[in-house]
Amino acid sequence: MSETAQMLLSVFIIFVSAKAAGAIFARFRQPAVVAEILVGIALGPTLLGIIHGSEFLDLFAELGVVFLLFIVGLECDPTELLRVGRQSAAVAVLGVVAPFALGYFLMAAFGRPVNESLFVGTALTATSVGITARALEELGHLRTTIARVILGAAVFDDVLGILILAVISGVTTEMGVSSVQIVVLTVEAVAFCGLSLLLGRPVVHRLTPYLSRHDENAQESMLFALAVGLCLGFSFLASFMKLAAIIGAFFAGALFAETREAEQLRRHMGPLYGLVVPIFFVMMGTRVQFRGMTTEVLVMGLLITLVAVIGKLVGCGLGALSLGRRGALTVGIGMVPRGEVGLVVASLGLARGIIEQDVYSMVVLMCVVTSVFPPALLRGLLRQRPEEEGPAAEEGSAESEGERRRAGVGEGERD
Amino acid sequence: MSETAQMLLSVFIIFVSAKAAGAIFARFRQPAVVAEILVGIALGPTLLGIIHGSEFLDLFAELGVVFLLFIVGLECDPTELLRVGRQSAAVAVLGVVAPFALGYFLMAAFGRPVNESLFVGTALTATSVGITARALEELGHLRTTIARVILGAAVFDDVLGILILAVISGVTTEMGVSSVQIVVLTVEAVAFCGLSLLLGRPVVHRLTPYLSRHDENAQESMLFALAVGLCLGFSFLASFMKLAAIIGAFFAGALFAETREAEQLRRHMGPLYGLVVPIFFVMMGTRVQFRGMTTEVLVMGLLITLVAVIGKLVGCGLGALSLGRRGALTVGIGMVPRGEVGLVVASLGLARGIIEQDVYSMVVLMCVVTSVFPPALLRGLLRQRPEEEGPAAEEGSAESEGERRRAGVGEGERD
Repeated sequence: MSETAQMLLSVFIIFVSAKAAGAIFARFRQPAVVAEILVGIALGPTLLGIIHGSEFLDLFAELGVVFLLFIVGLECDPTELLRVGRQSAAVAVLGVVAPFALGYFLMAAFGRPVNESLFVGTALTATSVGITARALEELGHLRTTIARVILGAAVFDDVLGILILAVISGVTTEMGVSSVQIVVLTVEAVAFCGLSLLLGRPVVHRLTPYLSRHDENAQESMLFALAVGLCLGFSFLASFMKLAAIIGAFFAGALFAETREAEQLRRHMGPLYGLVVPIFFVMMGTRVQFRGMTTEVLVMGLLITLVAVIGKLVGCGLGALSLGRRGALTVGIGMVPRGEVGLVVASLGLARGIIEQDVYSMVVLMCVVTSVFPPALLRGLLRQRPEEEGPAAEEGSAESEGERRRAGVGEGERD
Repeated sequence: MSETAQMLLSVFIIFVSAKAAGAIFARFRQPAVVAEILVGIALGPTLLGIIHGSEFLDLFAELGVVFLLFIVGLECDPTELLRVGRQSAAVAVLGVVAPFALGYFLMAAFGRPVNESLFVGTALTATSVGITARALEELGHLRTTIARVILGAAVFDDVLGILILAVISGVTTEMGVSSVQIVVLTVEAVAFCGLSLLLGRPVVHRLTPYLSRHDENAQESMLFALAVGLCLGFSFLASFMKLAAIIGAFFAGALFAETREAEQLRRHMGPLYGLVVPIFFVMMGTRVQFRGMTTEVLVMGLLITLVAVIGKLVGCGLGALSLGRRGALTVGIGMVPRGEVGLVVASLGLARGIIEQDVYSMVVLMCVVTSVFPPALLRGLLRQRPEEEGPAAEEGSAESEGERRRAGVGEGERD
């Protein structure tokens, strides 16, 4: 078979199985992300052995995750973050610190290297906005206070997770660095994040209104070119600076989050997302190896999952105590799902040789487990009191349209 | 630099230069396709030497051309073809036969091998719908009879060109085949085209109404999955049968052309198109080699271009004689631009070692020249008689909306 035929066959198998599994999972109200990972595990060397990593597939998946993080960034609107305010911030900060610390110390207790422990801790920090938003929307609870707090905190979460990743990925590049170098690399990472926002913002905010002076078609295609161009450029810069490429992509997305064109861009990036992102998740699944796994590692995996759940439940619950005990529990459960960002961190660690193969598989397991169960639990918790904020949640006034649409993106494309 | 950083940098440079050059060309009403090829020539080994073919870039461009041909197929609505009817068919058939024969005999006269001559002939057949449609729209002439004939014939053209390519690419795979084998391969090629339509149509026509029973987001993402899945699957099959992958992609697109969802799909594929297609054209530009070119080849290139222009002018003009001499001339000029399909044929021939490097460069030159000049000539010809079909052309009733949108796609994304 020619190289082209081989490539087309791989992409075809990956894409079609991912979409088919995603559709079946959607029937059972399960996130597509989980379907795609499981498809990857099934197609990969562990089970069927149909799909193997190749230079093309690996780099294509890399491009996929860059676009994924761009769109995650696009949803991190700073103005909205300020609106949901302190409550979400408290939930987010505690919900990031607790699992990070727990994850780090768990790994350290198993005698794992510092770098690996730091990466696992980082992989436990970020909540998956999409999975939670979708469950809340299905229950008609998107407009409630609890939903606002969860969604706001999940976005904060992503930002914090990325900042931690920026520092960690900078620091862990050089093996055995001195403390001076750690400081330098940390400053470099923070400077990259700060400068990209500081220098990028005026460019984006001056260029986007200029584009809207053109007719609709031209405006759309120029906006798209600007967004994709910045996304690729920032990703390259981050990657060139030995940070992770996705960090650049995230900040490029965040630059557009507060523009008037954010919604248009989100819609326009949808199809691209729909093609490249499933390929990334499937390829991540193919990297899972269950063969020859020791009992110790399996125990570690279960403990990582446990720590992931407890960390968010306790951290976020504490941050949301003002909502009452039941409210705090709901927020805590709503924040449990890890998805995209956690997986991205793990696969980055694997690619850099910082995370071992078996630990990687365990982190993927954690992402699958934490993504599957919370929606069902949320359904149980929220169904028992449908009258509390009932009518507002059901009618969906004009004001709530934005959130509905946002969750719609989460449903149709992101998960 | 890591492999990821290298990949991101290449894609960034290609994408940003292509889009910037495209925007500048748009100012001067020149097609983006030409801008992208010229960017490729500039970035490639001939001039700057910044971009070189790599496994990833080559396969990514391959994927780009697969999506390109899917979208070309999507515009080949059989019902619309029947509507514009015999007039367009006559223009198309004569406009395909004349340049094919002229191209073949020109190459044969230079003593070139039969296979190479066949490929060059094929590369001369297909008109670029996008370039012509755009020029006509800018002049407000989209609703005139002449425009209908041109657009209809250009679509017919694509179908004929693809059929010829299917046969030629099957036949030229085996070197020195017997006439029995030629017959077998031709039957195989025709069978592939026929069967893909025959078997695919019921599937698509039964599945698309089923999808619309879901809510809008789900419907859109499932429609997209179905379309991309069929596109990849058919491309693989064609490629597996030693036909060109793009032939499968074209027929997959054609399957959706007459569905109610064609317009939605066209809009939805836009962003994907906007990312991958420029990369294909730039990569094609990088394969152009002007260094060490002999005078003979340059003369051949000029003659190929001349033959390309005369073939269409005479062939299409003869087919459109019923529109009067001026009408026939306008149709002839409108059919001169070669773009996507001609380039695709040439690059396929180059990849298979059937077309030599120098001949490839000359075919690209032909595509550039024929795409640049006709719009300006059309402007001259059509401006001199604005009163003839004036009001209808200017007002744009509801009936003409479809065509306007179609040309809009041509403007915003295709060229």
